[in-house]
Amino acid sequence: PSVIETEDAAYDAEGYTHFMRKEIHEQPAAVERALRGRLDGRFHTAHLGGLDLDPREARAIRRVKILGCGSAYYAGQVGAQLIEELARIPADAEPASEFRYRNPVVEADTLYIAVSQSGETYDTLAAVQELRRKGGRVLGVVNAVGSAIARECDGGVYLHAGPEIAVASTKAYTSTAVVFALLALHLGRIHDLSPADGRRIAEGLRALPGQIEEILRQEDRIAALAADLAKYRSMLFVGRVRGWPVAREGAQKLKEVSYIHAEAYPASELKHGPLALISPDLPAVAIVPDDELLDKNRSTLGEIRARHGRVITIGHTETGEDSVVVPKNEPELDAILLPIPLQLLAYHAAVALGHDVDKPRNLAKSVTVD
Amino acid sequence: PSVIETEDAAYDAEGYTHFMRKEIHEQPAAVERALRGRLDGRFHTAHLGGLDLDPREARAIRRVKILGCGSAYYAGQVGAQLIEELARIPADAEPASEFRYRNPVVEADTLYIAVSQSGETYDTLAAVQELRRKGGRVLGVVNAVGSAIARECDGGVYLHAGPEIAVASTKAYTSTAVVFALLALHLGRIHDLSPADGRRIAEGLRALPGQIEEILRQEDRIAALAADLAKYRSMLFVGRVRGWPVAREGAQKLKEVSYIHAEAYPASELKHGPLALISPDLPAVAIVPDDELLDKNRSTLGEIRARHGRVITIGHTETGEDSVVVPKNEPELDAILLPIPLQLLAYHAAVALGHDVDKPRNLAKSVTVD
Repeated sequence: PSVIETEDAAYDAEGYTHFMRKEIHEQPAAVERALRGRLDGRFHTAHLGGLDLDPREARAIRRVKILGCGSAYYAGQVGAQLIEELARIPADAEPASEFRYRNPVVEADTLYIAVSQSGETYDTLAAVQELRRKGGRVLGVVNAVGSAIARECDGGVYLHAGPEIAVASTKAYTSTAVVFALLALHLGRIHDLSPADGRRIAEGLRALPGQIEEILRQEDRIAALAADLAKYRSMLFVGRVRGWPVAREGAQKLKEVSYIHAEAYPASELKHGPLALISPDLPAVAIVPDDELLDKNRSTLGEIRARHGRVITIGHTETGEDSVVVPKNEPELDAILLPIPLQLLAYHAAVALGHDVDKPRNLAKSVTVD
Repeated sequence: PSVIETEDAAYDAEGYTHFMRKEIHEQPAAVERALRGRLDGRFHTAHLGGLDLDPREARAIRRVKILGCGSAYYAGQVGAQLIEELARIPADAEPASEFRYRNPVVEADTLYIAVSQSGETYDTLAAVQELRRKGGRVLGVVNAVGSAIARECDGGVYLHAGPEIAVASTKAYTSTAVVFALLALHLGRIHDLSPADGRRIAEGLRALPGQIEEILRQEDRIAALAADLAKYRSMLFVGRVRGWPVAREGAQKLKEVSYIHAEAYPASELKHGPLALISPDLPAVAIVPDDELLDKNRSTLGEIRARHGRVITIGHTETGEDSVVVPKNEPELDAILLPIPLQLLAYHAAVALGHDVDKPRNLAKSVTVD
């Protein structure tokens, strides 16, 4: 594939110690750009110019399948949940590389969506090409304008997040989740989402940049927590439903930059295996939003504490010894704000351990080879 | 839910040190029982008496969704792959607890399948009840005859694996995978699977018990390898496509009984994050079947070795320093035989570490509470 080169030298960290920290702090502005001109205050829906999908075509979609690699796949899982919840179209996400190698059944009434920050991720591009060859309809959710995936798709939505230099994705992940919320709102308002609910979601989206600022103001406290957690070799990240992709992205971030063995597991699956690992040497980061599953999550926290495991909670209320509280928004949008403290946690753990944060060992920013 | 009590005292380990080892060795007989009377040598298909699904109804199924917890979920993922591959019906598996709490869209042309050894797993039962309440068609794949899930389903298939006492599932996992292969063969032969391919799969299934015996004869070598691996605190299990649920089940088994932090990751996703963890302290168990993805898997092994990571391969050929070779069968059935060395690996690692193998800390055999 052709590659759009972005020169590191063309950007600098502008007073930030690392690009990763700069990009974490750019998120309020990146989310503003992702939303700009896309919310319709009259019909309480979203307009996405590049989508090229008229309402009748949109109504004929029976399923949405989202494909990506790494953090793009986890952001795609957030997207699948938003689409199924707001538009009531069954949706799921799958790693692009698993999809392309398993000879999947391709269906005419499925909408396929390819996610890639660079727009050049090889496995995702190959999946797009395979789908198009079989007559599948594919949209791109991409940051880099004019990139290979953007060019190969039937239409799509740009993130407008600006260049991302650090290997570990932060602002592109968040902007992808925001773009999926817009798409879910758009599809929802074509289906059965009411104007009132559309307005509620749109207002929630508009509140995000200010709420991200609020989270970033807690950086010193999160950094102190990260420095303390950096002594562990293994951790679990647990969440359920909306908290599950958040746990996965949080574990991924910590793995990538701190090299701590952080594994994500669905909270409800703990007692079917991983609970055997819990001990004072293996803390758990639990995603505990104040939603209809709060009691279930509290009981998971109890299970972990009963085994003398240390718990750190990320949610909307103080729940225990160590907790990071994020501002409340609409529950459907929880998976957008909750990962942000986890980005700071991973960053500061890596700094505490003295790692090369922007260029972690063994990893490349865009995997453009097979 | 009512509970069918099985008294541990009613069985004993019959000369085996542990129930887990006894049950691993019972697998050839358990697979014989799962197959008995179910293969049709004339039409090269499978007959499953309790299915209660006539061919026209079967043809109307547009999707299969498999639900379970823990190893039942991983066996369900094997089942989804078999059904999509042999019958070309899009299929996937999801943890029952995630499904029941996310208010999923329930579709009339989807066949839902609930998997549970005990038939009493609370989350799976609750998912079945929610589905039935919404008019979903649910089949059960269950071991315990007359259990709650078996009674609540519209039909189903029993494993006939006999009582499983050890908390870590072995023979029930394998029998579940075999029952899914029978179901996939049945659905495949209703759709486009040719008689020749049906015969090929049926012959592959008939060969399994003898091939499991062959694997079990390697127990001493696998035990020596396990004793050596028991010194590590963290491991990765990697595989792609058919090898992916094998890697998940292998990591789960090791977690459950040895308390080693074993995490499964899709091989192709390694370079999007977990490759940063690879070091001489963190070995990787790679599932490397001799199928059309062998070259891709070899390149993954190269990536790990280049980072000075130790690799143990489970496949059909010797590939490196430490490898366990299983007999070749039909590629579609690879996910049935490949987990068996991993059961022995987990068992002997736990023995080497002096753990209570049959009753691992923090875990229960059947999770019959919310």
